[in-house]
Amino acid sequence: MSNVLDRVAATIEARKGGDPSSSYVAKLFAKGDDAILKKIGEEATETVMAAKDARVSGDASKVLYECADLWFHSLVLLAQFGLTPQQVLDELARREGLSGLEEKASRKD
Amino acid sequence: MSNVLDRVAATIEARKGGDPSSSYVAKLFAKGDDAILKKIGEEATETVMAAKDARVSGDASKVLYECADLWFHSLVLLAQFGLTPQQVLDELARREGLSGLEEKASRKD
Amino acid sequence: MSNVLDRVAATIEARKGGDPSSSYVAKLFAKGDDAILKKIGEEATETVMAAKDARVSGDASKVLYECADLWFHSLVLLAQFGLTPQQVLDELARREGLSGLEEKASRKD
Amino acid sequence: MSNVLDRVAATIEARKGGDPSSSYVAKLFAKGDDAILKKIGEEATETVMAAKDARVSGDASKVLYECADLWFHSLVLLAQFGLTPQQVLDELARREGLSGLEEKASRKD
Repeated sequence: MSNVLDRVAATIEARKGGDPSSSYVAKLFAKGDDAILKKIGEEATETVMAAKDARVSGDASKVLYECADLWFHSLVLLAQFGLTPQQVLDELARREGLSGLEEKASRKD
Repeated sequence: MSNVLDRVAATIEARKGGDPSSSYVAKLFAKGDDAILKKIGEEATETVMAAKDARVSGDASKVLYECADLWFHSLVLLAQFGLTPQQVLDELARREGLSGLEEKASRKD
Repeated sequence: MSNVLDRVAATIEARKGGDPSSSYVAKLFAKGDDAILKKIGEEATETVMAAKDARVSGDASKVLYECADLWFHSLVLLAQFGLTPQQVLDELARREGLSGLEEKASRKD
Repeated sequence: MSNVLDRVAATIEARKGGDPSSSYVAKLFAKGDDAILKKIGEEATETVMAAKDARVSGDASKVLYECADLWFHSLVLLAQFGLTPQQVLDELARREGLSGLEEKASRKD
């Protein structure tokens, strides 16, 4: 499972400096921070809409697709800032020792 | 690495029906869809702000923390809809065969 | 001043059922709710980015432009739901009697 | 109608430097940019959720309330950056001469 995030991150990293006309990710990198950040906001909004739709349709698959989109663009953002998915997982693991409201407090500090 | 997402998802799952006063996640589940979706929107906004701040401060660690927050609340959303992180990773792996603009087109279909 | 919101709302209303290929707003209406809601999320994200940029550049004009974008797409959303800017202003006026934390509580009820 | 935006903006302006414990808006100003920007993201998300709910319930009033919330916090943001609602309306009026895709192009330049 971990391999997927690593592999996708490696694919994204390989797109840096690539031809914007032939790769969606290369195009995002060429446009820079704002284009990537707009996608984070956009995919979050689409995730919210998908969840609302799923309650009506009874089909949660759209939530899955939009969450994948959101994570994918998170990986692009991480790459843009020289970060890796492993670092995000390490941070999640670090917090795992903490629980409940203590965890919430920790995240907000 | 995969184990982290699985373990966090298991911890989140175990909070379902838990005491809202003693667990942040149990509280989110008790409040329901809208509370969780608001967090998705909120954490996406905080990720955008963190990225902007990181360009000024030169310190990307806030991007990491906010991305971890965003993924964490994505995991809560997935649990709320009976989905698992493995399914998101499977979806990302499925797309990995596709590349560039083809991948973009696929995601938008 | 009020006339501006009324006039823009009237212009937007007149685009309903119009040719999507010749009008941006007609195109949004033709696409439907999700396209309009995506713009709300997108313009909110751009407003946040503009505010962050403004603190670095010292130039607040981008905040103004993005706020205008956000309000413009709010007017499209209102029209999509058969609502008018006057109704939003009436709601703001209604709350004006309330103040401070009392107002906050009112809005959240 | 215009008077409402002016009056609300004046009320908001008067909260600057006020006691954070007795006024919601004074509290936002005391917290600073990030607290205000988080509200923009949050209210946009709530507007999206309200619109989705309205299609199920057939009652658009929640869209109206959330739009009022979004505009209200936009007014707080404008005040935070020394801007006025009149300037946003002037910008909307300026664009009104432009139409359709031309307007879209203008906004994106």
